[in-house]
Amino acid sequence: MEPTTFILFGATGDLAKRKIYPALFNLFIEGKLPASFALIGLGRRDWSDEKFRGNIAQSIQDFSRRKGQDAAQVESFLQAFSYSVLDIGNLEDYGKLLHKIETREQALDVAPNRLFYLSVGPEYFETIAANIEASGLGSANGWKRLVIEKPFGHDLQTARALNDMLGQAFAEEQIFRIDHYLGKPMLQRFKAIQQSNPIIQALWTNRNIANVQITANETVGVEERAGYYDHVGALRDMFQNHMLQLLMMTAIRTSVGGDADVVRFKKKHIMEALEPLQKADVGLSVVRGQYAAGVLHGKPVAAYTSEPGIAEGSTNDTFIAARLTIDDSFWRGVPFYIRTGKRLKEKSTRIVIEFKEPLKQVTTGEEGAAEPNLLVIEMSPGESISLQLNTMDGAAKETFKPMRIDIDPGHGDLPEAYENLIHDALLGDATYFAHWDEVEASWAWVQPILEAYEENSVPLRQYEAGTFGPAEADELLARDGYRWWFDVAEPAKQLMVAGQE
Amino acid sequence: MEPTTFILFGATGDLAKRKIYPALFNLFIEGKLPASFALIGLGRRDWSDEKFRGNIAQSIQDFSRRKGQDAAQVESFLQAFSYSVLDIGNLEDYGKLLHKIETREQALDVAPNRLFYLSVGPEYFETIAANIEASGLGSANGWKRLVIEKPFGHDLQTARALNDMLGQAFAEEQIFRIDHYLGKPMLQRFKAIQQSNPIIQALWTNRNIANVQITANETVGVEERAGYYDHVGALRDMFQNHMLQLLMMTAIRTSVGGDADVVRFKKKHIMEALEPLQKADVGLSVVRGQYAAGVLHGKPVAAYTSEPGIAEGSTNDTFIAARLTIDDSFWRGVPFYIRTGKRLKEKSTRIVIEFKEPLKQVTTGEEGAAEPNLLVIEMSPGESISLQLNTMDGAAKETFKPMRIDIDPGHGDLPEAYENLIHDALLGDATYFAHWDEVEASWAWVQPILEAYEENSVPLRQYEAGTFGPAEADELLARDGYRWWFDVAEPAKQLMVAGQE
Repeated sequence: MEPTTFILFGATGDLAKRKIYPALFNLFIEGKLPASFALIGLGRRDWSDEKFRGNIAQSIQDFSRRKGQDAAQVESFLQAFSYSVLDIGNLEDYGKLLHKIETREQALDVAPNRLFYLSVGPEYFETIAANIEASGLGSANGWKRLVIEKPFGHDLQTARALNDMLGQAFAEEQIFRIDHYLGKPMLQRFKAIQQSNPIIQALWTNRNIANVQITANETVGVEERAGYYDHVGALRDMFQNHMLQLLMMTAIRTSVGGDADVVRFKKKHIMEALEPLQKADVGLSVVRGQYAAGVLHGKPVAAYTSEPGIAEGSTNDTFIAARLTIDDSFWRGVPFYIRTGKRLKEKSTRIVIEFKEPLKQVTTGEEGAAEPNLLVIEMSPGESISLQLNTMDGAAKETFKPMRIDIDPGHGDLPEAYENLIHDALLGDATYFAHWDEVEASWAWVQPILEAYEENSVPLRQYEAGTFGPAEADELLARDGYRWWFDVAEPAKQLMVAGQE
Repeated sequence: MEPTTFILFGATGDLAKRKIYPALFNLFIEGKLPASFALIGLGRRDWSDEKFRGNIAQSIQDFSRRKGQDAAQVESFLQAFSYSVLDIGNLEDYGKLLHKIETREQALDVAPNRLFYLSVGPEYFETIAANIEASGLGSANGWKRLVIEKPFGHDLQTARALNDMLGQAFAEEQIFRIDHYLGKPMLQRFKAIQQSNPIIQALWTNRNIANVQITANETVGVEERAGYYDHVGALRDMFQNHMLQLLMMTAIRTSVGGDADVVRFKKKHIMEALEPLQKADVGLSVVRGQYAAGVLHGKPVAAYTSEPGIAEGSTNDTFIAARLTIDDSFWRGVPFYIRTGKRLKEKSTRIVIEFKEPLKQVTTGEEGAAEPNLLVIEMSPGESISLQLNTMDGAAKETFKPMRIDIDPGHGDLPEAYENLIHDALLGDATYFAHWDEVEASWAWVQPILEAYEENSVPLRQYEAGTFGPAEADELLARDGYRWWFDVAEPAKQLMVAGQE
């Protein structure tokens, strides 16, 4: 790996504390940081290097997946960290920063490769990018990369404006847009397992796949983000970015040696083939929901509109379910169902591929009949990839029961999404980042929904907190003859697991 | 189930003792015998009913898979049993038997359904069948069935003669030819699991299947059967019947509601499509082997030709490996490899379906690369159906390891083959019996091999006892780029098993 200076804007912030420092520490322990690596933390507060390092040590202790860290290792890790005060709007501060960076680069005789990580609100992106450009921070002989976090725009128009502005300082191939769902280890392992198992590849056609279900259910409500969330909703907060990225990643077939460009090309194709919605028809394919009061884990919880910080009578969406179709020869006839929402019965992020049942007569109706075959990627809270097949019920000859068999059993100690993503950014591998084409196409695709919501032409379905969402989300599948896996009485844990009978 | 009189020739013999009585007892315990059921044991020895029942009780104690039987249950079971002396060649004895059977049928007012089970040497088949016919035993108003054991002929000509002779007393649909490999529970469960899992069906084409391997390896030598075996060899003893039946059952796709006629029709098609061998070319597709002295389980064992009862300088075959191809649109391009032999390193009866690897570049070569996907049906000594897939090696991102996952885990208490078969014969279900068309086609297919062996135009390969057979059996696959699963250093137990990591 090439020598890198990691310039972190927002170094005193919450994301840095919870995600970035623990991720860097794990990469350090695993020998996945460049041999020559320095991180300069930037913030408004007047911190010393010592205070900064002390905070990082605390963050590792609180949030690293490695417990009981070795003090000497932490100390060694912290040597790479220094802190500089920076007023985002003050160009002079960028000049000082440049001087500090160049002094180190020259002292060590390392290439001026600089990674700018913007762990700050999107309202600062423009100023920072412009000042990086104006100060000469980004014009050295090495590479420069910009890592930014969501949200990337508030709608199609604002996303385009943001991108144009960033484009004045950074080329597309220098921009690494983090969508942390793309960094989730089970998503990446799913693609690898698909690629390494010919029979899974062979099954990957619309001849065999009945439908794809992508779920990201949360039990939490709006928490401390009420003011922000009420302005954004599930559609912008989850669907436009994370859920559509999961759809793209599920729909593409990654091939051997496929690099980032190939993946981006294929994802772009999926978005182009995704059948657009007409604003007037949004209600046919989209269920817009908002949680009412209910009971969750035995405790009463308030309605969304009763939460502190939520506008009275807010019509903001806390749930969305949608039916999408990809109009290409590969996916024609295979609906993709997506749902995500807050205050739902169970926390679960999963992708389910349901296979067709060509022989319906055996597999439906009677007791002991076979269930559909499924491929299930559990991303959270459990982490596993499994097949649901039908096995015979004990020694009996003609009755079947469904059985989940793990292809990739949870390993308990998988890297966090941020470890994968920061590592890839250090390597310059953009495979698991969101390309502008995808971001733009996602906003374009959701734009009619945004407008229909705005005009209130789609009914806002109230759902009781602690349920699986509005009944209309079930009807969306029932119309096609399907149902959501695995709601209600069939949690995965109740199924027989191979080797544990 | 209809009332049945079960007339057992050879009731004092070894097969009856080891297999038939324990099977009947288990069917009784499971409520799978007809409500009105009587078994009349026939033999030369002058046994009383009491002695007969005592012997059966002993057989159940010694050989039933149910241990610790309830004495009252055994007693109740034995009420159905009586014994008659019968001289196979004495027609008068058949008349007496008829009288005994009719007396019972009339006393109980039950239909005269009679199942004749010939647990005797094939040299008696003709006489028994003729006397059943001549005595009127088989001409009642109910149904009659003839159950016979192998061997069914010594070559094509003698098999045809035997069948013609049986045909004078029994129609084809009344003849139930036992091939106990067809009764093996894992074979039957394999067909059921194939049928109940759409993804396994979807994979079942020559686009996806690379080859099929059918292995029946024994560790035993000729034991007490030396005189018989030296006259027969592996080709007649195992290959012509059991192995070709396994090939047919693997090759056919059973469909929903497929009855015995459909299965027979499909098996017949497979035999018709099986590419015939020319006598001159037998050596290209067939490896003929005979064991030399060696070491098995740490003990020295003698060469075949040194075994007691084997002719000096015998060229009899104790091993055969063959490459077969089925020339139909479904199986074209998919070789079937069969091997069976004595004094081999491990006892194992299994079917392996190896899937194609369309992406060779990922899956070969380097350490940690993916192995082929397999479907493995273990029939003996273990009983399971599993998929071998590739999983990721721990938390690492790009290395894979093969993993066997059980679809049908061993249940430990599956029915014996004879339970399945006797139950089916009582029901009149011929699905898992060998039809004459199959027997005839099997003999016709092996006839060039028999003749080539006879003329000694195929080299007899000596193999060390305690190995996996002659090296030529490996070369048979290596020529196509394959190898036998799972010889040598990769016993299934060394593979990671799901849920046990």
